[in-house]
Amino acid sequence: MTADLLWSGAHRADGLGSADFARAMIAVEQAWLEVLVGSGVAPQQARGRLDATVLDEAALAALAAATETDGTPVPALVDRLRRKHPDAARWVHRGLTSQDVVDTALILLARDANSLLRQRLRASASALVISIEQHGQAPLLARTLTQAAAPTTWGVRASNWLDRILDAVDDLDRLTFPVQYGGAVGTRAAGVELGLPPGGPTPVFAETLGLQAGRPWHTDRAPMTRIADAVARAGDACASIAGEVLSLARNDAGQSEVSESQPGGSSTMPHKRNPVLATQVRRAGFVIPALLAALHAAAADQSDERPAGSWQAQWRPFVELLQIVLVAAGQLEDLLAGLQVHPDVMAANLQRAGQDVLAEQRSMAELAGHEPAPDYLGESEQLVAASLQRARRDLGKTR
Amino acid sequence: MTADLLWSGAHRADGLGSADFARAMIAVEQAWLEVLVGSGVAPQQARGRLDATVLDEAALAALAAATETDGTPVPALVDRLRRKHPDAARWVHRGLTSQDVVDTALILLARDANSLLRQRLRASASALVISIEQHGQAPLLARTLTQAAAPTTWGVRASNWLDRILDAVDDLDRLTFPVQYGGAVGTRAAGVELGLPPGGPTPVFAETLGLQAGRPWHTDRAPMTRIADAVARAGDACASIAGEVLSLARNDAGQSEVSESQPGGSSTMPHKRNPVLATQVRRAGFVIPALLAALHAAAADQSDERPAGSWQAQWRPFVELLQIVLVAAGQLEDLLAGLQVHPDVMAANLQRAGQDVLAEQRSMAELAGHEPAPDYLGESEQLVAASLQRARRDLGKTR
Amino acid sequence: MTADLLWSGAHRADGLGSADFARAMIAVEQAWLEVLVGSGVAPQQARGRLDATVLDEAALAALAAATETDGTPVPALVDRLRRKHPDAARWVHRGLTSQDVVDTALILLARDANSLLRQRLRASASALVISIEQHGQAPLLARTLTQAAAPTTWGVRASNWLDRILDAVDDLDRLTFPVQYGGAVGTRAAGVELGLPPGGPTPVFAETLGLQAGRPWHTDRAPMTRIADAVARAGDACASIAGEVLSLARNDAGQSEVSESQPGGSSTMPHKRNPVLATQVRRAGFVIPALLAALHAAAADQSDERPAGSWQAQWRPFVELLQIVLVAAGQLEDLLAGLQVHPDVMAANLQRAGQDVLAEQRSMAELAGHEPAPDYLGESEQLVAASLQRARRDLGKTR
Amino acid sequence: MTADLLWSGAHRADGLGSADFARAMIAVEQAWLEVLVGSGVAPQQARGRLDATVLDEAALAALAAATETDGTPVPALVDRLRRKHPDAARWVHRGLTSQDVVDTALILLARDANSLLRQRLRASASALVISIEQHGQAPLLARTLTQAAAPTTWGVRASNWLDRILDAVDDLDRLTFPVQYGGAVGTRAAGVELGLPPGGPTPVFAETLGLQAGRPWHTDRAPMTRIADAVARAGDACASIAGEVLSLARNDAGQSEVSESQPGGSSTMPHKRNPVLATQVRRAGFVIPALLAALHAAAADQSDERPAGSWQAQWRPFVELLQIVLVAAGQLEDLLAGLQVHPDVMAANLQRAGQDVLAEQRSMAELAGHEPAPDYLGESEQLVAASLQRARRDLGKTR
Repeated sequence: MTADLLWSGAHRADGLGSADFARAMIAVEQAWLEVLVGSGVAPQQARGRLDATVLDEAALAALAAATETDGTPVPALVDRLRRKHPDAARWVHRGLTSQDVVDTALILLARDANSLLRQRLRASASALVISIEQHGQAPLLARTLTQAAAPTTWGVRASNWLDRILDAVDDLDRLTFPVQYGGAVGTRAAGVELGLPPGGPTPVFAETLGLQAGRPWHTDRAPMTRIADAVARAGDACASIAGEVLSLARNDAGQSEVSESQPGGSSTMPHKRNPVLATQVRRAGFVIPALLAALHAAAADQSDERPAGSWQAQWRPFVELLQIVLVAAGQLEDLLAGLQVHPDVMAANLQRAGQDVLAEQRSMAELAGHEPAPDYLGESEQLVAASLQRARRDLGKTR
Repeated sequence: MTADLLWSGAHRADGLGSADFARAMIAVEQAWLEVLVGSGVAPQQARGRLDATVLDEAALAALAAATETDGTPVPALVDRLRRKHPDAARWVHRGLTSQDVVDTALILLARDANSLLRQRLRASASALVISIEQHGQAPLLARTLTQAAAPTTWGVRASNWLDRILDAVDDLDRLTFPVQYGGAVGTRAAGVELGLPPGGPTPVFAETLGLQAGRPWHTDRAPMTRIADAVARAGDACASIAGEVLSLARNDAGQSEVSESQPGGSSTMPHKRNPVLATQVRRAGFVIPALLAALHAAAADQSDERPAGSWQAQWRPFVELLQIVLVAAGQLEDLLAGLQVHPDVMAANLQRAGQDVLAEQRSMAELAGHEPAPDYLGESEQLVAASLQRARRDLGKTR
Repeated sequence: MTADLLWSGAHRADGLGSADFARAMIAVEQAWLEVLVGSGVAPQQARGRLDATVLDEAALAALAAATETDGTPVPALVDRLRRKHPDAARWVHRGLTSQDVVDTALILLARDANSLLRQRLRASASALVISIEQHGQAPLLARTLTQAAAPTTWGVRASNWLDRILDAVDDLDRLTFPVQYGGAVGTRAAGVELGLPPGGPTPVFAETLGLQAGRPWHTDRAPMTRIADAVARAGDACASIAGEVLSLARNDAGQSEVSESQPGGSSTMPHKRNPVLATQVRRAGFVIPALLAALHAAAADQSDERPAGSWQAQWRPFVELLQIVLVAAGQLEDLLAGLQVHPDVMAANLQRAGQDVLAEQRSMAELAGHEPAPDYLGESEQLVAASLQRARRDLGKTR
Repeated sequence: MTADLLWSGAHRADGLGSADFARAMIAVEQAWLEVLVGSGVAPQQARGRLDATVLDEAALAALAAATETDGTPVPALVDRLRRKHPDAARWVHRGLTSQDVVDTALILLARDANSLLRQRLRASASALVISIEQHGQAPLLARTLTQAAAPTTWGVRASNWLDRILDAVDDLDRLTFPVQYGGAVGTRAAGVELGLPPGGPTPVFAETLGLQAGRPWHTDRAPMTRIADAVARAGDACASIAGEVLSLARNDAGQSEVSESQPGGSSTMPHKRNPVLATQVRRAGFVIPALLAALHAAAADQSDERPAGSWQAQWRPFVELLQIVLVAAGQLEDLLAGLQVHPDVMAANLQRAGQDVLAEQRSMAELAGHEPAPDYLGESEQLVAASLQRARRDLGKTR
C-alpha cells in the first residue's frame, strides 16, 4: 500500500505488502523445517536459516506470475527455497500443504498488525485522557438528529470515545492466532507417514511461530473472521469518532468547537481549515464493512476439503482490512493527539441555543416538585470519572 | 417473518416480529417504572403491570404509522401505555429517551434469540456426535479444488463440522447483553433531576431485565455489532456445513455419499431427491454478510449525540440477521438429525479414484525410507477423538 | 412489510408481501395456461381464470410451510390450483419448472414497483421545480468538508437534486422485464414434448404478462441485478438528498436553512424540530448497498443448471430492495413537497461567514487583471435554467 | 496491483496503479490548460505539454505523503507541475477544484479499463463460439440442486455463457464517461471570473479528453456507480461461468467433463489437475459485491457541497473493482480459449444417470397422448443457433 495515491495514509500500514507476505510464508517454512529436524524426521544438516532477504522486485514478480499458474504462491516459493538451500531442499515443506503455509502466514501478518493496532488505539486513548483532564468540564451543546438538544460537557463526549477505544482494545487483546496445520486434506497424513507423532508437531510448530496450536481449520474460516470482526469493530470505533469530530468541526456559527492542529488548506480558498485527518478516518467506515462482508461471504462458502474460489478470495480482503484499519487508527492517533478544543466556542454555541435546551429540565423538575437544579448534567461527572479511572488502569498495563 | 414465501423456514424464527419488538419495549418501560417506584421517585400507586397483551393488528398498524411521524415507535407506545394505565401515566418513561427503549428492546430480542440459537447449534452438535459414533470410521474420498485428492474418513469430515459448531456456541456463550440508559443526550440528566442517584438506577434497571449494566452507548454501536458478529459467524458455520453437505450429496457417480432424510421432490422429475434443507441453509450465506455490512456501516457513521439515519438503519437488519441465522440453525438441526450417511457409496467412490490418491503417501514413504503404512489417514483417529471428547464435555454442561 | 415497527414507513411499499408474491405466481400460471390452450396443446375447457382471491392467512401459512419442504412455493401452489380448478388441473403448470414461475413472479413485482417508484421520483422532481421557481435565487453558503467555502444559491443546490432524480428516472425507464421460461433444465423440453412449437410460446407468454420475451436465464442473474442496480442508484439518490437536507437543517447558528413541514417532536424536549423524514430517507443508504451486495454475490455463484442456495437467496433481498427504495422515495416525496426553505436564514449564515468566502474570487480577479465581478456565482443561473428546462420536458411526458 | 501475491493475476490489470492515476490527473490538468489557452484566458506561451514522464517511485512517495496532509493528491501535483513548467505555472489548474481533477482522472481510468474489459469479454465470446461449433451437439447431463435432472447439450450450456457475456458487453458499450467540472463549490465561479464563458469550457474540456460533457456531479455519484454496476455485472458473469466450469470439472465419476488446458499441479499429489483459472475467476465473485457495496454506501452519503469522507472513500474501491474484474475477465479469456471439452465423459455420465432423467419426458408424452420423441432436448438447437447468430453479428462489429 506504500505510495497509494488512491488511499492516503497507506504508508502507515507498511508491513502488509507482497514482500511481507512472502517473508511470513518463509517464516512458516522455517518453523516447519525446525519441527522436522527437531523431531528427528529430517537430519541435522537440513537445519538452517531460510533466506528471506532476497525477495527483490524481480523475485516477487516471478512469484506473482507463478501464483497464477499454481493457484497459490507456495509451489514457486518452495522451489526457490529448495534451490537456495540444497542441504535442506529435500525436507523443506514436506508434510505441509500450500494452505497450511498461506493461512499461517496470513495469521502472522494479522498478529503483528494487531499489535500495532492496539498500540495506536492506546495512544489515542492516552490523548483523550489528556484532553479530558484539560477541558473535560467545558460545557457543550448536545445535538440529536442535527438539532440542539440539551447541555453536556466535552468530558462526556470525549469519555464516550475513550470507552469506545478501550473496548476495542479489550476485544483485540482477547484474539487468538492459531497456526494452520492439516496437510493435503486435513488429516496430517503426510506428516505421520514421515514419522511425526500424532498430536506432536502442532504445539512445537505453533510455539516456534508464537501462535496457538489447534486442529486443522482449512474449511473453518472462523479463526480469520473472528480476527476480522474485532479489527472491523476497532475500525468502526475510529470512523465513528471521526464522524463526531467532523460534526464538532462545522463552522456554521462562525467557528469550530474543535479543530485539527494541522488542517488542510485549499489552493484557492485560503480561509479553509479542512479537517483532513477526520475526513480520512471517516472514509474507512465505508470500506471496512465491505471487506468484512467479503470475508464472511467466503467463509460461508465451503465444499469438499478445500473449496475452489472462496478460500483464495479471502487473502487480499483480509490483509486490506488490516491495512485500512491500521491507517485509520494511525490517523486517529495524530488527530486526537493534536486536537484543539475550543471551550469558548462551545460556550458561545450553547449560549446561542438559549433556554430551549433546558425545557426538559423544567418539566422534570415540575414533575419532581422542586426547582430546577443549578445544572442539568446528570451523571456526567461520574461517567467521566469512571471512564478516566478505567483508562488509567488499562493504559497502565504493559502489553 | 411468519408465512414468508420469500424466505422459506421463516416460521422457525418466530418471536422477532413487530409485536415481539413492541412487547420488548413495554418490558423496558415496565422495568424502568419499577426503578422509579423502587427508588422512591414515583409513588407506590404508580406500580403496576403494563399491559402487553393488547397489541393486535390494528394497534400495531397505528404504532407503525406513528413511528414514521415521530421517528421512533416510542412516543406513540408511551402515549398508549399512559392512556391504559392512568395511575402510572405520570411516571411512565420519565427519565428515559426513545433510544434507551429501542436499543434495550433490541438487546432483549437478541438475548432470547441467542439462547434459542445456542440450543439449536447444540442439537446439531449432538446429531453429529451420533453420526460420528455410527459411521466415523467410514473411508471417504477427500477432494480439493473439485478434484479427487487423498483418503479421509467421515469422522474427520463430521468432526470438523462439530468443532465449527462448538466454537460458534462458545463465542455466543461469551456475549454480553447491556441495557441502554442515557437519557436525552447520554448524561442521564432527567433521571438525576427526578431524584435518581447517580450510578444508582442502571444496575437495578439491568437486573430487572436480566441484562448487564454499563455506561450509555447511544453513539457506540459495538454492543450491537459484537453480538451481530458472533451471530454471523454462527451463520457462516451453518452455511459452510450445508455447502459441504451439498458437495457430498452430488450424484454424478450415480449415488450420493450423504442424503437428506426427506429430500425435496420435483413435480415432473420423480427421480429427483433434492437436498432442500442444505440448499436453504446454504442460502443464508449470501445474505448474512450483507446484513452484517449494513450494521457495521451504520455503526461507523456517527455524529453529535444521536445521528440522523445510521442509528435508525440498524433496527431491522439487526433483527433480520437474528432471524436468518435462527432459521438456518433450525434447518441445519433437522438436516443433521436426519442425515443419511452412505458408507458403501463413499467406499465405492474412493475405490473408483484408484491408486492416484495414494501418490503423496508413496512419495512421503520414499522420502522417509520405508514402505507405505497400511493406511494414509494420519492423525484422523486422534482428531476425531479429541473432537468427540470436547463435544461430550461441552454438551454435558447445562446452560 | 405493513406495520413494520423496525422500518418505519413500510406501509408505503404495500404490494410486495407474501400474498402479492403468491398472486404474481398465480398470474404466471394463468398466462401459461392461456399459452397451452391458445396453442391447442390443452383443450378449450381447461381455459379459466385461476382464483387468486382466496389466499388468506391460513392458506399463506400452509404455502409457507410447504415451501420449506419443497424448496419453492410452486409445488404446493400448483397443487392448490389444481384442486380448485378441476377442469384445468391436468394442464396447470405443464411445461414449466418452479424457477420459471418464481423468477417471472419476481419480475412482475419489480415491474409494478418500478412503475410506482418512477411516479414518486417524478413527484419529488415536480416539488423541486416549484421550490426552485420560488426560492431558486436565494443566496446560500456552500460548505465543503464541513467548512464554509463560497457562495452558491438554493437554485444550484436544488437543481443538483433535480438532475439526480431525473437521471434515476431515466435509468429506471430503460429497464426491461423479461419473462423466465426454460423448463426443468433450460431446454424447454417439456413444452416441446407437449406440442408447443420451438420459439413459439415465449412471445405469447411474455405478452400476456406484459413482459419481454427472451431466452431462458435460469443461471444468468443479470436480468435481476440490472434491475436491482438501477433501483439501488435511485435509492442512493434519495438518501444522498436526505443527507444534504440534514446538513441544511442543522441549527448550530440558531435556525435551520431548510425545515420539514411536520418535524418530529420530542416528548420531553418541546423545542426539538426533528427532521424525521430526512432521517428515515437517509437510513436507507445503509441498507441498500448491503441488499445489492447480497444479490450480486448470489448472481456470481452458479453451478450446474440450477445452483443450490444462491438462486433461492435472491428472492427476499430482491423484494426488500424494492421495498426499501419505494419507502425512501415515498418519504422523500413528502419531504420535498413540504420542504420549507428559509432564505432569510440562508442569507444570515452567508453574511456571518464574511469576506473569507470571496477570497477565491479576489485571487481569480487579480489573476485575470480586473476587479471582482459583482457576484461570484459563475454559471449558477445557466445550470439552474438547464435543469429546469430538462425537468419541464421530462415531467411533461406522459409515462 | 503488479506483483500482488495476495491476488494472483493482478498483472492483468496494469494501468490502474498510483502512477497511472497520477498520469491521468496530469492529463486532466493538460486538457484544462488547453481550455484556458484556447479560450484566450491564458496567454499562448502558457501552452505546453505537461510532463508526466518523471513520476518515479520517489515522486510518487512524495505525492502520497502530501495526499494525507492535503486530503487529495492534487495540491502537491499542481505544485510540482508549476515548478516544472514556469511558463504555464500561473495558469495550471486555475478554475478547477481538486475534485474536478480526481473525479475526471478516475473516469479516464475507467474508460480505458472498460475498453480492455470489453475486448477480453469479446475474446471469451469468440472462444465459446468455436467450442460450440466444435462440440455444441454433445449430449450432457443437466443437474439441478446437485442432482441429475435431464439431458441437455454442451451447446446449450455454452450458449448460455455466450449470451451472458454478450449482454455484459452490451451494458458496457452503453456506458458514458462524463468529465467533472464544477470548481470549488459546483458553480464554476472561478472559471467565469477568469473570463470563461458560461457553458463554454465544458464541451471543449470533455472533447479534449475524449469524455462526455455535462453538469457538475460533485455530490451526485451516479456517474461512478452506473459504471461500477455494469462492471460488477460483467464480473458476476465471469465468476458465474467459472462456477459452472468448476462443477463440470469435478471428477467424482472418474473423469472431468471439461478441463483446463494447463491445470495446476500439486507438489505432492502428482495426479491432481486443478482447475486453477476457474478457481481464480470464481474468487472474484466474493469481492466484487463488497466493493460495489462500498461505492453505493459512499454514494448514498452526501452533505453540503462536498462530503467529508464518503467522496474520498470511493477512489480506491472504484479502481479495485476495475482491477478485479479485469483480472477475472483476462483469466476467463485464457480459461475459455484453452477449455478442453470431453464429449465422451459427458456421454458416459449421462449414460450412467439412466432412464430416470427421461421420467419427465414420459409423463409429458403421456399427457400429450403420444410416444416420447426420439430426443428430449426441446428448443436446444434453436436456442444455440440464435445465440451463435447474435454472437457472429455482435463480434463482427468493430468497436
